[in-house]
Amino acid sequence: MEILEGRQSVLPALQARVRKFKLVLIKQGSTAPHVPEIVAAAQAQNVALKFVSASELDALTKGRSHGGVAAICSAKPATAIAQIIERVQRHTAPALLLLIEGTEDAQNLGYTLRSAEALGADAVLLKKHVWNFDGAELSRASSGAFERLPLAQVENLEKDLSPLRRQGLRFWGCIGGAKRDIYQADLRQPVLLAIGGERRGLSGAMRALCDGFIRIPMRAGASSLALSHAACLVLAEALRQRLANERVDPPIPNSA
Amino acid sequence: MEILEGRQSVLPALQARVRKFKLVLIKQGSTAPHVPEIVAAAQAQNVALKFVSASELDALTKGRSHGGVAAICSAKPATAIAQIIERVQRHTAPALLLLIEGTEDAQNLGYTLRSAEALGADAVLLKKHVWNFDGAELSRASSGAFERLPLAQVENLEKDLSPLRRQGLRFWGCIGGAKRDIYQADLRQPVLLAIGGERRGLSGAMRALCDGFIRIPMRAGASSLALSHAACLVLAEALRQRLANERVDPPIPNSA
Repeated sequence: MEILEGRQSVLPALQARVRKFKLVLIKQGSTAPHVPEIVAAAQAQNVALKFVSASELDALTKGRSHGGVAAICSAKPATAIAQIIERVQRHTAPALLLLIEGTEDAQNLGYTLRSAEALGADAVLLKKHVWNFDGAELSRASSGAFERLPLAQVENLEKDLSPLRRQGLRFWGCIGGAKRDIYQADLRQPVLLAIGGERRGLSGAMRALCDGFIRIPMRAGASSLALSHAACLVLAEALRQRLANERVDPPIPNSA
Repeated sequence: MEILEGRQSVLPALQARVRKFKLVLIKQGSTAPHVPEIVAAAQAQNVALKFVSASELDALTKGRSHGGVAAICSAKPATAIAQIIERVQRHTAPALLLLIEGTEDAQNLGYTLRSAEALGADAVLLKKHVWNFDGAELSRASSGAFERLPLAQVENLEKDLSPLRRQGLRFWGCIGGAKRDIYQADLRQPVLLAIGGERRGLSGAMRALCDGFIRIPMRAGASSLALSHAACLVLAEALRQRLANERVDPPIPNSA
């Protein structure tokens, strides 16, 4: 069981209907605008509600950011690769998947999920050995994106990714030394973008599966980008190319 | 006095010659490859060196990431706007400045500085009321970018930014509701990119000074991007446009 706290986690978790809820707790007398919304979402699926004192809520939760709302529920299970394929097939847009091989902490993973959702990724795939986060903390850091976005666990790269290959996805590995930069790759096609951990970079096993490699252009002399920022930039470039494809309006002149 | 820890902070701080060093501490018997480099940098400017036990170093530092190196030194002072103008005038590339009106914590500000440096920003400007970070924590989180990149304090937007206006910088405000997206703005010119805090967005005072507004395209239904990620994307787009201007090689076909 996990204890979710705050509207940003509890509401999307209720709406996603993936976690099993034991209880939703709301601060007695709260007049926060999100309370009726959360009560309605809980009642819609017969989740028990309990109105408790502020001190009871404080004792149950870790952070100071619960805003009068918490929930006791099951952990969010990993999404199976088969479900991700179903999702990709259902969508009319070409697949956009992000695979990350490392992550510093739940906060950075949360930001990565938040960016991935905002930039149109269908799902994020995470290596099993870094699958050791606190789901409630991840939910909060992701601003709820963790509740909405499928997150799959990858144990054996070759075995787990081969169904995606059969779906026609092109695998791009992001590495600093690539000749091609992200702006020189066609990311409008169905793609999986693979990013290594901050310390070790992209693994040899993942490199062996890649169809090509891309790098993020940077100015010389600087250190590098954090993993969540590198992921954000590559996804944004995929979205830019896709939107340029869809766009019909002419560019606006600077004087406008 | 601040206690810097780790090679990523101590070495660039020594090299930048902005902080005043009282002492550089190194773990006795350390064979880490960065030790000779740090010893040489300290000796080059007559900074006292002390070889201490691991337990002394642990007692002095906060994190577990010192890697056998720490330093006692003055806080890094804010860079004056006049110095930033000198820097911009010295560079041949058009100015690229980032102004942020809010920040969540030292870690996120550190990531913002790290991205800003990697993506070619000349300096970052920060509103005075959010200037309350721990300089050593910021240095660590920024992977040393804080030591290298000028960071200026802005108290009165109109007064402090008017010298930049006189240098011909165009002020772009990043807001969710802008008609123009970041790809439709010419960011090759000298620019200041202004981003509001996560909660309140861009202030009215800053909006009044902007020449135009831009937004980051996102997919519907998602929450939003974290501030450091939004900053990273806007800076990356400025760099993309500038590199495209400089680039001479033709695009590489996908089959290559």
